[in-house]
Amino acid sequence: MTNKQDPRTAALMIIGNEILSGRTQDKNANYIALNLSERGIVFGEVRVVPDIESKIIKTLNELRAEFDYVMTTGGIGPTHDDITAACVAIAFGVVLEKNADAYQMLVDHYGSEDEVNDARARMAMIPAGARLIPNPVSGAPGFIIGNVHVMAGVPAIMQAMFDYVLDGFETGAPILANSIACDTVESALAPMLAKLQAQYQDIDIGSYPSFKDGKAALSVVLRGTDSGRLKLATDDFFKLMDELGTSYRVLGELAG
Amino acid sequence: MTNKQDPRTAALMIIGNEILSGRTQDKNANYIALNLSERGIVFGEVRVVPDIESKIIKTLNELRAEFDYVMTTGGIGPTHDDITAACVAIAFGVVLEKNADAYQMLVDHYGSEDEVNDARARMAMIPAGARLIPNPVSGAPGFIIGNVHVMAGVPAIMQAMFDYVLDGFETGAPILANSIACDTVESALAPMLAKLQAQYQDIDIGSYPSFKDGKAALSVVLRGTDSGRLKLATDDFFKLMDELGTSYRVLGELAG
Repeated sequence: MTNKQDPRTAALMIIGNEILSGRTQDKNANYIALNLSERGIVFGEVRVVPDIESKIIKTLNELRAEFDYVMTTGGIGPTHDDITAACVAIAFGVVLEKNADAYQMLVDHYGSEDEVNDARARMAMIPAGARLIPNPVSGAPGFIIGNVHVMAGVPAIMQAMFDYVLDGFETGAPILANSIACDTVESALAPMLAKLQAQYQDIDIGSYPSFKDGKAALSVVLRGTDSGRLKLATDDFFKLMDELGTSYRVLGELAG
Repeated sequence: MTNKQDPRTAALMIIGNEILSGRTQDKNANYIALNLSERGIVFGEVRVVPDIESKIIKTLNELRAEFDYVMTTGGIGPTHDDITAACVAIAFGVVLEKNADAYQMLVDHYGSEDEVNDARARMAMIPAGARLIPNPVSGAPGFIIGNVHVMAGVPAIMQAMFDYVLDGFETGAPILANSIACDTVESALAPMLAKLQAQYQDIDIGSYPSFKDGKAALSVVLRGTDSGRLKLATDDFFKLMDELGTSYRVLGELAG
């Protein structure tokens, strides 16, 4: 679905001690971010929380009240520290119950009912009233309840689940972006960028310095959903750069 | 300082539209996570928020009430979208004022007062009462006010600032970890891991499946601050693996 109203908003809760201990570098947030931008959904917040029941429940309740769509990653496996489904059930005030379809998915994946031991059967315990998210990689499904979408943390599985979930989101005009590498420093462009931003309030103008091998670089990014307005703002930016006598080069293809 | 009390807790607020748009993959959280673990500080939460004043202030006030130390990254440059210092001032109910030391740092870095144009001078606007965090890379300092530590978002600068900040944190016993690659699937170990976890409540036992090139792998990680207890738990884990007839291999050096 596409709509002409305000864009939908989304947030992500990453559940995982392994991210907070530094053992694992999260990659899911970036994957989700890029895909939401393409679909015109505003990615409004990410929270990384530990495997602590009270924290997961509180965070979930805050995010689901604030955003149109909430996604969670992590904590839906077969072990003692996989407590996401139980926490979601508590947050929604429903029971956690054996879901017959989820159980059948496990039987299908593992080949027979005998193979679905107690630990695996735990992955069929789903909050009452939830719809399942198929898992083409490792059998155990995620689920959707209210505006909350519960997915696995392993990137390969998360991506398959997220692609399914995204199909159900109400999308908007894709967020287009022009990135320009600028041969100068941020402070030299600051007044011009502020002026341009004031002129184009529907375009998000950001400047991003970086350092590689001790060398400073600067990118300016213009983002917006209206390609005509983006083109106007980008052309004005080029003009102002020329007036400053500052060289630049467009990164990738120009949108708008 | 080292103390024998409960470990200190820390949280991070990442301020940046570029993370939420997917343009940039955050690397700072992982760097901070690894260093906090080494110093025995519990990393309790990460939040990524957009460059929106109300959101930054609300998030900051929530985190600084809950955690011993709060760090922020991003939004302290010279451009219109760098609003972190102003937001922190509002959160603490103090004025944002020209900090003479910060201004001098800019003069020193850029070489003369003439070089500190209006945009650069903006980076000397610091909440009243804050202490500065030196920036050996690009001049403009971060700052500390209350339990809040405001740092740059560019990783090279953030790391230099964080190393300085960390020196002021009350540290605890380093969190030691043993990682073991296991030739089996999570669900086969789940009952044993639950039993071991119940026996060692001071050791955090997690299992982490992954997929590379379509091949499944599994790591079990045992973490704790008491090296004697970690050794006991790890030895018990090895014994239980042998009883299950499951092969495994230690990743890196054994701690404890």
